[in-house]
Amino acid sequence: MASRRAPIAGRYTAEEVALAARNRGMPLEALRHELTPAGLHYLLIHFDIPPADASSWRLQFKGFFDKPFSISLEEIRRLAPTTLRVTMECAGNGRGQLSPRYPSVPWLEEGVSTADWTGVPLAALLQQGSLSPLAKEIVFHGADRGFDAGVEHHFARSLAVAQAMRDEVLVAYAMNGAPLPPQHGAPLRLVVPRWYGMASVKWLQAIEAIDGAFDGFQQARGYHFRRRADEKGEPCTLMRVNCLMVPPGIPDFYSRRRTVEAGKVALAGRAWSGSAPIARVQWALDGVWRDAVLAPARDLCWRGWSAEWPATPGTYELACRATDAAGNVQPLEAPWDLSGFGNNGVQRIQVTVRA
Amino acid sequence: MASRRAPIAGRYTAEEVALAARNRGMPLEALRHELTPAGLHYLLIHFDIPPADASSWRLQFKGFFDKPFSISLEEIRRLAPTTLRVTMECAGNGRGQLSPRYPSVPWLEEGVSTADWTGVPLAALLQQGSLSPLAKEIVFHGADRGFDAGVEHHFARSLAVAQAMRDEVLVAYAMNGAPLPPQHGAPLRLVVPRWYGMASVKWLQAIEAIDGAFDGFQQARGYHFRRRADEKGEPCTLMRVNCLMVPPGIPDFYSRRRTVEAGKVALAGRAWSGSAPIARVQWALDGVWRDAVLAPARDLCWRGWSAEWPATPGTYELACRATDAAGNVQPLEAPWDLSGFGNNGVQRIQVTVRA
Repeated sequence: MASRRAPIAGRYTAEEVALAARNRGMPLEALRHELTPAGLHYLLIHFDIPPADASSWRLQFKGFFDKPFSISLEEIRRLAPTTLRVTMECAGNGRGQLSPRYPSVPWLEEGVSTADWTGVPLAALLQQGSLSPLAKEIVFHGADRGFDAGVEHHFARSLAVAQAMRDEVLVAYAMNGAPLPPQHGAPLRLVVPRWYGMASVKWLQAIEAIDGAFDGFQQARGYHFRRRADEKGEPCTLMRVNCLMVPPGIPDFYSRRRTVEAGKVALAGRAWSGSAPIARVQWALDGVWRDAVLAPARDLCWRGWSAEWPATPGTYELACRATDAAGNVQPLEAPWDLSGFGNNGVQRIQVTVRA
Repeated sequence: MASRRAPIAGRYTAEEVALAARNRGMPLEALRHELTPAGLHYLLIHFDIPPADASSWRLQFKGFFDKPFSISLEEIRRLAPTTLRVTMECAGNGRGQLSPRYPSVPWLEEGVSTADWTGVPLAALLQQGSLSPLAKEIVFHGADRGFDAGVEHHFARSLAVAQAMRDEVLVAYAMNGAPLPPQHGAPLRLVVPRWYGMASVKWLQAIEAIDGAFDGFQQARGYHFRRRADEKGEPCTLMRVNCLMVPPGIPDFYSRRRTVEAGKVALAGRAWSGSAPIARVQWALDGVWRDAVLAPARDLCWRGWSAEWPATPGTYELACRATDAAGNVQPLEAPWDLSGFGNNGVQRIQVTVRA
């Protein structure tokens, strides 16, 4: 781990700002949409968006298959399609609020969105190649290439065979009803619902069955929860329980501090968890918690919530907190993580109510 | 000007990072596309994206018109449409490279993009209302509202009547062939080609003819070139001559430093100017300038350029510089500006070539 970057405390570096400008977050007022409008979905692109020619693109199936094969975009589009509405969050969402923090994209809280993904179940394609019983993991190779911590690699991630065979794991070619845009993985990408976004490999060019554990950089070194640089750590997998609120009222341009008119203020937001359905959302005014009203639940997709706040003039802190059906509750502050992963501490919004 | 924010030197604030995460830049590899793909166009949203109901939206024409009127989106869509391919740049592009810098969106160089805008010429709508000969300026009122430097306002800008009547100024309802997305001003926005982006008011809800000079915040206080806080300054208008290059090779994730294979390296980029067509692009290797090859010119749209670099192993600085037909040349370093406007200093890219 000698080549890990040194943690940063205090103000942000030019490299962090450049990554924030490239890797767009979802402006929080877009939480008003269950389906994030095209162009507002968050983006995390490790290297560059690779050039891709959809007409000549072929997805290779190789390694432990009895019948290795390749398939074109057009051939995939002729298979029976599945569309799923999936909430996806970057594992590093909230990193920018930690101190010290790992030098990477300094998400504050906006690295989450929901899209309709259309494609075919990965399991159907694995079956077409007659996956060998010796296969232990399926590796997904993207076309994007670069360096991280001195190691040159294509972006690649793996799933255990049982995970890869879940019906809801898609090889997708469309987003919100349109062909994948370049920045979201055109022409083909993986979509792994419930997991943090790193599992949903973009610009998918090869799917490889292996008989062991994948040791690629993004699998074995990246995307682990760690407290110390010399520990192996725990891999990032399912999204932790989390929720956000549409900031009420109007903002100041620079500070984003909110000003709200006194009276009945409609609060609203969305909550999600990779482990289990959302069972409860609470909102707080200056640390006093009360229950929000939940909208109907929808599998794989964040759950809407709302509350009415009878606001009187003054200065307040609003917050929200979700609990899932497995009993996971958002912490008021998330445990510190070396690489800034999994920060699901509660969102806090400073608000001034005027008469 | 007492409420102006104090300049920042050195590392970036959490407020700047939050603005960078909301206001996405165009990843520079997207320069490979003349038409920026949907969802990659840069965004500068002063306040929040306002909710908008396209079916009930009406654009008001008021003030110095002999026949004030309002018009719905559907009525505008029934008029003869015009589509223009327009390069647009944020007036604050490059602000983040200045020192000290004004507290705002810390663009490094990615606040520029090109879109196909479809709509109707503003002049046709002004004529429909019989613009009074007493009208001096046309004010464009957006629906987005908030505070800046302590002043609450809707975003609003004006143009002199002669500027507003130019054929190329559009009231647009579509971008790249699809209805405007919420973040680009749905359902209606102004598009003012050749000018910095602040002129192209989004979420357009009223067009007002006035018989004097508009004194709104974004016109009279914002968007002026200034060296001192107590001077009136010069208003930002036409885009200054500028150009960018697709960073060659592959990046390091954090530093974005580039690694390139030795051999013939294709360099390419795009150049633009609001004042005149692009007449020349040069590129430099370690400060030695040579001419690039220009692609055909297209009015209102950036002009492609290319060059071939016979790269040998070593470490180099690449740069590019444009000149327009009016004789404007990009400076090696732009003059410092209090608010960080108009930074058209040359782009520099550090590259390592390996054998």
